Amino acid sequence: MRATVLVLPKTGILDPQGSAVEESLRQLGFPVGEARVGRVIDLDVDAGSADEARSAVERMCEQLLANPLIESYEIAVEDAS
Amino acid sequence: MRATVLVLPKTGILDPQGSAVEESLRQLGFPVGEARVGRVIDLDVDAGSADEARSAVERMCEQLLANPLIESYEIAVEDAS
Repeated sequence: MRATVLVLPKTGILDPQGSAVEESLRQLGFPVGEARVGRVIDLDVDAGSADEARSAVERMCEQLLANPLIESYEIAVEDAS
Repeated sequence: MRATVLVLPKTGILDPQGSAVEESLRQLGFPVGEARVGRVIDLDVDAGSADEARSAVERMCEQLLANPLIESYEIAVEDAS
């Protein structure tokens, strides 16, 4: 099963990468508002059902993929065979 | 308009971050297959329509957000007010 995890800095947490992207885009002439930069992790998960895959990926996020103090995550599971 | 860009290394391109995540997850006891790690950029775009926002974000990807030689990108535009 294919899982996609988006990890983004929580609102209120300083995001220097996001600020840099914002400023560079404005200098290139793009009218953008707030930008935030995070990580995306695309994973093949060995699981019997989408629910099982999702709960495994949640445990992965807590243990390795995200820092829950400063980052929030979103999980999408796709039943692609 | 809110746009989300996923930037991932193209298939066949070496992804050391992905390999490290893969190995760490296996050591933690998670049965995972291939993992790929990329960036997610969340942006507020000033545009009149979703199509206009998407084409602006495409230009941003080509000019700044992605390296088209080694990375592929996906754009999602959300009309949230």
